[in-house]
Amino acid sequence: MAGDVTGGDLSRLRQLNAQAVIRVLQGSSSLTLTEVARSTGLSRASTEDVVRELLQKGWVAEAGATAGGVGRPARRYRFRSEAGRVLGVDIGGHKIRAVVADLDGEVLHSARVAVTPEMGRLERLAAVDRAVAECLEGAGLTGGDVWASGVGTTGLVDGAGRVLLSDALPEWTGVDLAAHVRRMCPAPVLVENDGKLAALAECWRGVARYAKDLVFLLAGLRTGAGLIIDGKLHRGFANASGEIGALPVLGWIRAQEHLVAASGEAGDVFAAAREGDKAAVAAVRRYVKDLALGASALVLTLDPQMVVVGGGYSRSADVLIEPLKRELDRWCIRTPEVRMSALGDEAVVLGAVRLALDDVEDRVLDGRSPLVSHL
Amino acid sequence: MAGDVTGGDLSRLRQLNAQAVIRVLQGSSSLTLTEVARSTGLSRASTEDVVRELLQKGWVAEAGATAGGVGRPARRYRFRSEAGRVLGVDIGGHKIRAVVADLDGEVLHSARVAVTPEMGRLERLAAVDRAVAECLEGAGLTGGDVWASGVGTTGLVDGAGRVLLSDALPEWTGVDLAAHVRRMCPAPVLVENDGKLAALAECWRGVARYAKDLVFLLAGLRTGAGLIIDGKLHRGFANASGEIGALPVLGWIRAQEHLVAASGEAGDVFAAAREGDKAAVAAVRRYVKDLALGASALVLTLDPQMVVVGGGYSRSADVLIEPLKRELDRWCIRTPEVRMSALGDEAVVLGAVRLALDDVEDRVLDGRSPLVSHL
Repeated sequence: MAGDVTGGDLSRLRQLNAQAVIRVLQGSSSLTLTEVARSTGLSRASTEDVVRELLQKGWVAEAGATAGGVGRPARRYRFRSEAGRVLGVDIGGHKIRAVVADLDGEVLHSARVAVTPEMGRLERLAAVDRAVAECLEGAGLTGGDVWASGVGTTGLVDGAGRVLLSDALPEWTGVDLAAHVRRMCPAPVLVENDGKLAALAECWRGVARYAKDLVFLLAGLRTGAGLIIDGKLHRGFANASGEIGALPVLGWIRAQEHLVAASGEAGDVFAAAREGDKAAVAAVRRYVKDLALGASALVLTLDPQMVVVGGGYSRSADVLIEPLKRELDRWCIRTPEVRMSALGDEAVVLGAVRLALDDVEDRVLDGRSPLVSHL
Repeated sequence: MAGDVTGGDLSRLRQLNAQAVIRVLQGSSSLTLTEVARSTGLSRASTEDVVRELLQKGWVAEAGATAGGVGRPARRYRFRSEAGRVLGVDIGGHKIRAVVADLDGEVLHSARVAVTPEMGRLERLAAVDRAVAECLEGAGLTGGDVWASGVGTTGLVDGAGRVLLSDALPEWTGVDLAAHVRRMCPAPVLVENDGKLAALAECWRGVARYAKDLVFLLAGLRTGAGLIIDGKLHRGFANASGEIGALPVLGWIRAQEHLVAASGEAGDVFAAAREGDKAAVAAVRRYVKDLALGASALVLTLDPQMVVVGGGYSRSADVLIEPLKRELDRWCIRTPEVRMSALGDEAVVLGAVRLALDDVEDRVLDGRSPLVSHL
């Protein structure tokens, strides 16, 4: 009964097929048509059609032939990750990070500009501009070469790339980050909360690659969360998911204070705790208790496969992870696997790159690929 | 490039097309092929093929012709909701409900057996048997006529239909409900937590029909929750989602006690509060504060479109809903729309019917339709 399919069916099928081929090619250095067909489950003829179209559009290139065997060597194809560039930016309290990546998400150049939590809006935006300019220059690019930009920031972000609410940074509520970054890089700019981007990065390049349901805890000067549900970033109806910190009884508001009270710098407290300093050990224990209370609320709500702890404090995994597991065991019906982020400081900016790549990939599948103008 | 598609592609397409046609026909009394094609977006030829196959398999029947207009009147088709029957069961502390429904989910017969929260396992299971037997008999059916059964129960349920943990009912942990119900009705038996089923029912037939993200609160002798995320029931990695009640600081463990302290029966407290009795008003206020604390944790985690309050206490919407909204406003960054369930006591058993229907619909799309044996 499916001998006859409509134009709409076919165009959807073509998009899915093109996406499948790109994903398979992204996963290897090069593949033959036979290998692409096997990995995608597409027929040989479909695979040829898709690869031909992707060659024409510049997403795929020939990659030399396979020698050996009987007869003519098979042609090999590769994803042209060099065809385009994306920008990722992480705007934090202490630093601005900007990276340029290729279409595989490989970071080609990065820049870092130090800032302070006290800086006002204009000063922080100027630092963003410096980081982006430095990064583009280092990569030998201009803003027009960027196909899409992803930007991570603390606070609640709306769908248009504006910061709706930020308690952590002064004068940050209301800033239109998408418009600001578009002035330098006119391609689409996607803005997202830092905890959400770090969660995305952990699923893409981090310790949660095989998890479909994930709670990411951003443990640092600010405590935040990002949720992956059924393999997708869960944003919420107004992009305000994971904001468990707003409930005082769950401890995230005061969590940080235990460390500050014990020492001016959290890093010092963790170092002292590592060396057995009693006051520091007690402060870390109180911090972990509060972190775990909010985390337990997230875990009990979602029953995720995995909890990943990232953010600045994930460097102190050795003194954090075991007490955190014990506290989660205390409250949760089923304690999920607890892992420390391996991405550390890079998680948010990598998540920003992933956000930009998702946008680029959506556009190739819509047939609105920007590639044509670059060939 | 999609001129050539594989067998796998086509079979998936055929399943999607059959599903689309069934959904469209379920939504009306009868439709012409032209109307089906328009509503599904399928081509005329695809529509004809799909409808022919569904006619052969007994899912669809002719429904007389449309008169009027020029030429031969167009044939009309309808979904054969009478082709099969499903069973829904709700096992509670105070009652067992069993219903038989057709493939549209219309309830044809129902039975109710009173039980007590104190009853042991065997007694409660015997009551389940009585309710199911009475319901089947009333509908003129035997167990073999049931295509699928859905069962709702308090407690955590595993994927095989066993109760993993129940605090509310004595001797209920460990009971294999799927195996028990299969003895009477040998078709597949799906067992699920009552809060989760009520959430499903609200999206299907209740006040949340247009919500994609929903927090359902089961407010009654026990406080529970069910989550709909992105249009689907969110079960969690080990089917333990929504169990926020396990965290003492979120108040659900003690919520119920405020009402019991004020009066032996919660219904009495709500009635007294309605009439202005000061002690009752204070007890309801304390109950709502605790209910809202746990609910706020769910809302802050997920940022849902809507909160629906159901369960036994939803009958007292007039004294519950405004204080609940005020408490949510106090804690939530964005308070979602708050609605009282219109399904009341029927929500869990309707969710059980929906669960059974989902199973039947999955099987038609797999080509493993049980219809053939019934024609």
